[in-house]
Amino acid sequence: MSGDRRPIGIFDSGVGGLTVLVELRKRLPGESFIYFGDTGRVPYGIKGKETVTRYSIEIVNHLVVSHDVKALVVACNTASALAFSDLKKIYRIPLYDVVTPAVERALKATKNGRVGVIGTRSTISSGAYRDALRLRNGKVRVYQQACPLFVPLVEEGWVENEVTRMVASEYLSPLVAQRIDTLILGCTHYPFLIPVLKQFLGPSVQVIDSASSVAEEVASSLTSHGMKAKRRRGRVKYLVTDDPERFAEFARERVGEVVEEIERVSL
Amino acid sequence: MSGDRRPIGIFDSGVGGLTVLVELRKRLPGESFIYFGDTGRVPYGIKGKETVTRYSIEIVNHLVVSHDVKALVVACNTASALAFSDLKKIYRIPLYDVVTPAVERALKATKNGRVGVIGTRSTISSGAYRDALRLRNGKVRVYQQACPLFVPLVEEGWVENEVTRMVASEYLSPLVAQRIDTLILGCTHYPFLIPVLKQFLGPSVQVIDSASSVAEEVASSLTSHGMKAKRRRGRVKYLVTDDPERFAEFARERVGEVVEEIERVSL
Repeated sequence: MSGDRRPIGIFDSGVGGLTVLVELRKRLPGESFIYFGDTGRVPYGIKGKETVTRYSIEIVNHLVVSHDVKALVVACNTASALAFSDLKKIYRIPLYDVVTPAVERALKATKNGRVGVIGTRSTISSGAYRDALRLRNGKVRVYQQACPLFVPLVEEGWVENEVTRMVASEYLSPLVAQRIDTLILGCTHYPFLIPVLKQFLGPSVQVIDSASSVAEEVASSLTSHGMKAKRRRGRVKYLVTDDPERFAEFARERVGEVVEEIERVSL
Repeated sequence: MSGDRRPIGIFDSGVGGLTVLVELRKRLPGESFIYFGDTGRVPYGIKGKETVTRYSIEIVNHLVVSHDVKALVVACNTASALAFSDLKKIYRIPLYDVVTPAVERALKATKNGRVGVIGTRSTISSGAYRDALRLRNGKVRVYQQACPLFVPLVEEGWVENEVTRMVASEYLSPLVAQRIDTLILGCTHYPFLIPVLKQFLGPSVQVIDSASSVAEEVASSLTSHGMKAKRRRGRVKYLVTDDPERFAEFARERVGEVVEEIERVSL
């Protein structure tokens, strides 16, 4: 028993990436993780490329230098869309983004070649999902929709009420009118809304969640690179840039994560 | 013509404080202003006291040291509620917050002594408005309500649609049930929602907007301290921590401000 026992870094603008962490731990129980939530500067989805890239680099530097992570998952869709290509140029450790695995899964899923993508304003206006889809399949038709109210609705805990249904109908109607058969949830907060989204979309549209897609990709990549830790059970340490107690409370209430080790970091 | 020609600093977590700036310029056309919008870390209303205080100090230090402001207006309700008492201990220039003037106006306005306060989650849970009201009048009854979806609705531009009316009804019904006759808008974004709020509240509830309240206070205080600039027309310079173009676009579209001089600052 040993292998590469260094932790895997995972970062998000806030709490959304917890959905990715949960999926990763299911598939990689022997790994330790350092989860970095930039709660002091959340959200990224309304901010520009230069700002999001600067924040991402500060965070990855911290995870590499102070915590010696062996690999890094960018669990934030906005950072994946805006900063990932720059991060790839900088760092030598393996990096994983949430865009690529979801795109590959969506292309396998679609039958009519009409794929919808929803995300924050910055993710959608970056065109990262659209470009990644078209790069792999020049014939696919991509329909994008920014849904800026979904994140605050999730954070307010209004995941299944009448307001949320109306907002979902407002955002998704144009995509349904385009007869999409596959919808990529391009934001890690959105899995909390799956019941409402499925209710509106009906059974003919497949919903692709980027959290489970990236977790599968990381698990198979670590295995093939011989980089897995060989231990029974890893640990999770959390780093946040705002109040640690607020974060721990959200983690417990929304994803059932019991946060034992958490620290505030000032970048 | 001269007087104290140094600029007045005004800071907000983002764009909301523009409503305060507009009111200040109406009353003080001869003053120059430096508006600092912390758009790279917006919003403050979901963040804790320690984080908001640290950001506020970084910003005021910058305005005092690099821009020699003669006075400072904390145009952000969250920063006023969480950080203002610490700022008062630190700085020697006159400081103005948005809480105090709105509280004084509400106490003059109420007839039945039942006052409602709405704001972000952090502003409401700080109890700053409630405490300031009770300090001045031990008999006043205060009913508070956090309205975390109002800011994203305003930023989405959904200021008069059906979703906004439903959200307003959800948040305001408990206050109406308490028979308030005065409502303090404890967030600088909320003036954009006044039509919807008034439609729901009806004519029996007076709405107190903190932007115009603080502007009146600053104007009369500068006059009485002999600190007014004696010139015909002042200038406005904007400093932001995210994309300057996004900020200028919002300012033009929502409050009709033409932004001529704007700079990105990294704190």
